[in-house]
Amino acid sequence: MRGTNRQGHIVLTSHPGQRGPKPLAIDWGAATAAERGPVIGSLGTPAKRNVIGAHSGSYALYRALAIASGSLSPVHRPDLSNTAPSEAFGPFPQWSEPDKIVSLDPWGHMVGEAFAGQIAEGYDIRPTIAVTRARLTVPELKERLREGKLSVDGRILLPSGEINVTKVAVEPVWHLPGVARRCGIEENQLRRALFEHTGGMFPELVTRPDLEVFLPPIGGHTVYIFGDVAAVTDPARPLACRVHDECNGSDVFGSDICTCRPYLIHGIEVCMRTAQEGGAGVIVYNRKEGRGLGEVTKFLVYNARKRQEGGDRAATYFARTECVAGVQDVRFQELMPDVLHWLGITRIDRMVSMSDMKFNALDRQGITMVERVPIPDDLIPADARVEMDAKMAAGYYTPGPVPDEERLARAQGRGLDGYGTAS
Amino acid sequence: MRGTNRQGHIVLTSHPGQRGPKPLAIDWGAATAAERGPVIGSLGTPAKRNVIGAHSGSYALYRALAIASGSLSPVHRPDLSNTAPSEAFGPFPQWSEPDKIVSLDPWGHMVGEAFAGQIAEGYDIRPTIAVTRARLTVPELKERLREGKLSVDGRILLPSGEINVTKVAVEPVWHLPGVARRCGIEENQLRRALFEHTGGMFPELVTRPDLEVFLPPIGGHTVYIFGDVAAVTDPARPLACRVHDECNGSDVFGSDICTCRPYLIHGIEVCMRTAQEGGAGVIVYNRKEGRGLGEVTKFLVYNARKRQEGGDRAATYFARTECVAGVQDVRFQELMPDVLHWLGITRIDRMVSMSDMKFNALDRQGITMVERVPIPDDLIPADARVEMDAKMAAGYYTPGPVPDEERLARAQGRGLDGYGTAS
Repeated sequence: MRGTNRQGHIVLTSHPGQRGPKPLAIDWGAATAAERGPVIGSLGTPAKRNVIGAHSGSYALYRALAIASGSLSPVHRPDLSNTAPSEAFGPFPQWSEPDKIVSLDPWGHMVGEAFAGQIAEGYDIRPTIAVTRARLTVPELKERLREGKLSVDGRILLPSGEINVTKVAVEPVWHLPGVARRCGIEENQLRRALFEHTGGMFPELVTRPDLEVFLPPIGGHTVYIFGDVAAVTDPARPLACRVHDECNGSDVFGSDICTCRPYLIHGIEVCMRTAQEGGAGVIVYNRKEGRGLGEVTKFLVYNARKRQEGGDRAATYFARTECVAGVQDVRFQELMPDVLHWLGITRIDRMVSMSDMKFNALDRQGITMVERVPIPDDLIPADARVEMDAKMAAGYYTPGPVPDEERLARAQGRGLDGYGTAS
Repeated sequence: MRGTNRQGHIVLTSHPGQRGPKPLAIDWGAATAAERGPVIGSLGTPAKRNVIGAHSGSYALYRALAIASGSLSPVHRPDLSNTAPSEAFGPFPQWSEPDKIVSLDPWGHMVGEAFAGQIAEGYDIRPTIAVTRARLTVPELKERLREGKLSVDGRILLPSGEINVTKVAVEPVWHLPGVARRCGIEENQLRRALFEHTGGMFPELVTRPDLEVFLPPIGGHTVYIFGDVAAVTDPARPLACRVHDECNGSDVFGSDICTCRPYLIHGIEVCMRTAQEGGAGVIVYNRKEGRGLGEVTKFLVYNARKRQEGGDRAATYFARTECVAGVQDVRFQELMPDVLHWLGITRIDRMVSMSDMKFNALDRQGITMVERVPIPDDLIPADARVEMDAKMAAGYYTPGPVPDEERLARAQGRGLDGYGTAS
């Protein structure tokens, strides 16, 4: 190994207590940061780790590659000067209510402050949440402004068409007993499934029942907040919210087979308007491409839908995903409310979503939703009608009629060949 | 465990040959699919696996959660009917040239056809690449069309402003000996670093030197192809290309601190125009958020830049990332050319990138770049000037003058407080 990479004996897995002194305890859900204790996932001093896994989700692998090739020191410690949140968040009662938050560290943005003592003592404690400010340009909303459909207020929406926001990046931090309870299974079943059904990732899931916190190698969330952060939790002021699951093909490239980007942009508009009225808006962006199945599965399903006998139609929309993936959806919305609990939200006045899965997950977690805002009809791309009808028939919220069987059976999507021509 | 989840003894790791008959061999880089052999990463029949890791990159974890909670059968086999690529790709000479492709499976889109025999025998062989068609709406380009700056051709750019493309999703499949050679290190050093510096992920990296292929839990790539797929490899027709590394804050939300979305959109325009001239365009979108460091690190660095004494300036641009992350960048562009080799590309006429890292990586891999297309000055957001100047000073391609020291030392970015007001 180059540089200061570790030499010698390779430890294939660890066992409780084998390394001598116990690491600092984590009392998940404790009322204060001091009582909860820090999450220590850094690898420079293995004996101090009190979690399974590594920081930065799946980006841990790129860090390992950088260490392997000699460009990053394995014992580097972050200099956190000037990195503290641009806005204060919490603590909120939800941070210590039992099992309200099981998939992120509520103190993750405050480690520099909350664990200053331990950091000074030599513990490498890293933020798992970061809060900054940004100014956004959304071309569809600039056009709405030009058309006179939005009003500049000079604070949220600027004369240039730019939008001021506070934004928050959140890495996954799982409390395994809590995640198991959300799944409705035993913790040891969860640990074993996470180990075995990933091809043997992290044997410590099995060998370290004393370590209850897991940093999984998956994507996290980004939260965009419009308006005063204080308005998010003020019961006297309205709150709008959209929880959006990543769809790179639409969100970035504007593919017309689904409503993802149009609905996201509508969500941003509703959030911005609500902030302009003196309330706040929250967009949660979850990295769960293709319903958590990934983009390869998604594209295989597109082909199967477009080529099936009878054409692309709502009646067989979910079945095609199930044939390929064995399941319609693995986004596991049960964990989704955590980030809203972290924000201290108990009521959403305008929920910009028609998803029954999201509604039910939030409702089960005690978050009240007053109004549900559907996507305006003129924002649904022609080729996305199949998806929209299928979802409405399966329980999506709609203020209008649910599509009937004749409509569900009718081919409405383009064929695969139609993509290459001007049809 | 519910349903058909496995019971009994937990195997913490495996060792060569311990399960009886050897799995099918993989002869990486062989000239035909039959000689190369299939990549078998599915978990239903462990004895047949011939790789380390699991399919779908980091989404394997969501699949495991779905199995744990009983919604997905652990022995489901995909029905691949109608999922085959919408366009044929390859084989190209690069697929079997030594070490040209080390981080994806060149036969990954053809498994249904190339390994039909083994699938019929009961092997669960899954595509790691999927090819489909799509129709894109890019609001910035719709506006360019309205302004008369683009021409409708009815095949690539439609009168509606929509754009026809072929798109390809690619999951990572690493040949460990080849990846080690790209890193310039020994294979056992790579294996050990990947294991130890991820907190002990996949002990088989260490215990199974006989398994040379690894499916890492990281994001993959998406390729968007404009124009005839055949033109991509036709030396008589021009080819444009942009290799774009994910930046969710700009690509989706239009944050003004960097040039990511504007440059991507310019890349799409150049690709589309080149296709309209009878050539082709290729956008490669790599899931490597925040230079492969993730979004939490990125936001911490934004705060450190905005708050440092002397303000946000090009002279300290890279230093701020290094303070926090210990390294400027972990995207590891050495692996990036693989997807272009997979496409059969040997020459790019218009390379829409100013990055010296990308240029050097492609150049080292023998891909000729004729012209380098910078981002037009009027597409650079005001707050992104710091990034652009810092990169040009560090070796980014620019047809104009490199910024001088006085300019690099001057604060050009907004302060953090400026985000909340109309400044």
